Amino acid sequence: MSVLATLLDAVRTIRLTEVPDPEVHSPTDAVVRVTASCICGSDLHPYRGTAPTAFPKRIGHEFVGVVTAVGSAVQTLAPGDAVIAPFGISDGTCRHCRRGLPTSCVQGSFWGAPDRSGVLADGGQAEFVRVPLADGTLVAAGTEDPALLPDLLALSDVMGTGHHAAVSAGVAAGQTVVVVGDGAVGQCAVLAARRLGAERVVVMSRTPQRQELARDLGATDVVEARGDDGIAAVRELLGADGADAALECVGSTESMSQAVGALRPGGRLGLVGAPFGQLPLGAMFGRNIGFGGGVAPVRAYLPELLADVLSGALHPGRVFDLELPLADVAEGYRAMDERRAVKVLLRP
Amino acid sequence: MSVLATLLDAVRTIRLTEVPDPEVHSPTDAVVRVTASCICGSDLHPYRGTAPTAFPKRIGHEFVGVVTAVGSAVQTLAPGDAVIAPFGISDGTCRHCRRGLPTSCVQGSFWGAPDRSGVLADGGQAEFVRVPLADGTLVAAGTEDPALLPDLLALSDVMGTGHHAAVSAGVAAGQTVVVVGDGAVGQCAVLAARRLGAERVVVMSRTPQRQELARDLGATDVVEARGDDGIAAVRELLGADGADAALECVGSTESMSQAVGALRPGGRLGLVGAPFGQLPLGAMFGRNIGFGGGVAPVRAYLPELLADVLSGALHPGRVFDLELPLADVAEGYRAMDERRAVKVLLRP
Repeated sequence: MSVLATLLDAVRTIRLTEVPDPEVHSPTDAVVRVTASCICGSDLHPYRGTAPTAFPKRIGHEFVGVVTAVGSAVQTLAPGDAVIAPFGISDGTCRHCRRGLPTSCVQGSFWGAPDRSGVLADGGQAEFVRVPLADGTLVAAGTEDPALLPDLLALSDVMGTGHHAAVSAGVAAGQTVVVVGDGAVGQCAVLAARRLGAERVVVMSRTPQRQELARDLGATDVVEARGDDGIAAVRELLGADGADAALECVGSTESMSQAVGALRPGGRLGLVGAPFGQLPLGAMFGRNIGFGGGVAPVRAYLPELLADVLSGALHPGRVFDLELPLADVAEGYRAMDERRAVKVLLRP
Repeated sequence: MSVLATLLDAVRTIRLTEVPDPEVHSPTDAVVRVTASCICGSDLHPYRGTAPTAFPKRIGHEFVGVVTAVGSAVQTLAPGDAVIAPFGISDGTCRHCRRGLPTSCVQGSFWGAPDRSGVLADGGQAEFVRVPLADGTLVAAGTEDPALLPDLLALSDVMGTGHHAAVSAGVAAGQTVVVVGDGAVGQCAVLAARRLGAERVVVMSRTPQRQELARDLGATDVVEARGDDGIAAVRELLGADGADAALECVGSTESMSQAVGALRPGGRLGLVGAPFGQLPLGAMFGRNIGFGGGVAPVRAYLPELLADVLSGALHPGRVFDLELPLADVAEGYRAMDERRAVKVLLRP
């Protein structure tokens, strides 16, 4: 038996391929039939060749689905359960997981790479996926309502990552917040900041559709200018001191400088854009601007955010603006690469 | 009338000079007769020519003394009051001061440079000093006990700066802490970490006298190795995960990397060494290590730390290991420059 999975053969060359039917390998494994997956901004790094990548590469780390099989040691899940898979695999029991940092799990691994037993953890852009450490990794969705599927899928990465930016920056009720980055994570950071009570949320964006989406998600203001002009525009909106918090969802030297420049003395930077630049450390030091953040511990945030999705209070699925069958995955990557789409949902 | 003050004429050329007798210039000024001042590690930057400096420069930003005159608007101090001057001038009433960040005071300035009215704020290594914004800047010591003078003087900068490192790193009871830097600030960071309840404090130091001082101040362990070997040694002492908090009191790329390398996932860096290097941002991002800190808001911490000095619970004055008359200021700078002294106390 075989099933279909995405394979990145080379830079900008992605296709569906037949792979062996995923099976329970360890007693702690489950197998999940994927009902929807998506393409992440970070998938574009190997796609574009801007990250070191061993080709061919199984890819995709965001998916929701239904459990089809469980190993003998799996205690919390059974075949038929609808589940959300966060972008990291974790046991849920180690000291780091207990501290809320499953991305540093001592048994942790990531999709599309060998798990801790040395067996490939399948990529999520596929029909079926073997899930290591299923009890720790998966979260029961508690619903199969098709209308909620995009919201549940967004919880697998981007919503938790935007939330991590806001939590790491200490966003609290009544605060002013600047969001740098208008991709799916930036959009979710807007949602997260408002959810935590921010009074003003300024999003920095030059693209009309993305500005509109951000406003729909709760942004109170949009700044198109960048660099020093952008910083001046933020200060004109929020007052000369600048913002209480800045959520950086890009990772370049320019975007980090812009985020820091928009902050008041003692303001705080939430960093979730994987950094490929340097912080303006001298400017931060002089004004006592610190930062928190990193690879988002999405699994730890899932129960809290899921409750808000199920209650109807949170709709992160609005970041999906293109839906394709899995067979059209190549077009999905092209649309993301060319910034024609904010985020692409794929259905097997 | 004239009084004596320190003047940095050129790189490594420092002397006492006659300056006009400081007088009340603004109604919010006071004049203080200095009973003791000291030399800061940061004074070595202009002394060594490693910071851009306009010569000749009046210098010194740490002093204690007795008020000799006050302007008509000064409300909380009177001639005869013993006072501590923190390293920054601040009004105590602006929005930044009220948030605990007097180093970002909207009327703030620093010793040895023009105040906000454009008049030179005297350097602290002197016989007399005009103090702008006296109500906001000065703290009444509440004692003239000569035995406490070194402790009170240490509150003007290094103790508050070490405390800022510990607070910014979130040091809490029972934690493990690494201190990078064995100068006066590093030594005070050891004191501060223990005062906040740290259970293990590892100081990284290669100098026997400084190791001994750190142990006297509460360090439980000393690591001599640097770089990867130093990180391995810390992990051998504290367990493979590393420390909960790292207090960085140097500012170089190497020392910041060492501090980050010694931290556990989710650990936190307190940064008070003025940075002249770059953070290992990728490593921090992957393990969710954030940082806080910057120019220490010493004035905000003074009441709390002063109470502990007055109760006898805190003795930061132990960092002074050389005492000289102000007339020998040049020898004091040489001793600091050559690392013969941790910190030099000067008496006019």
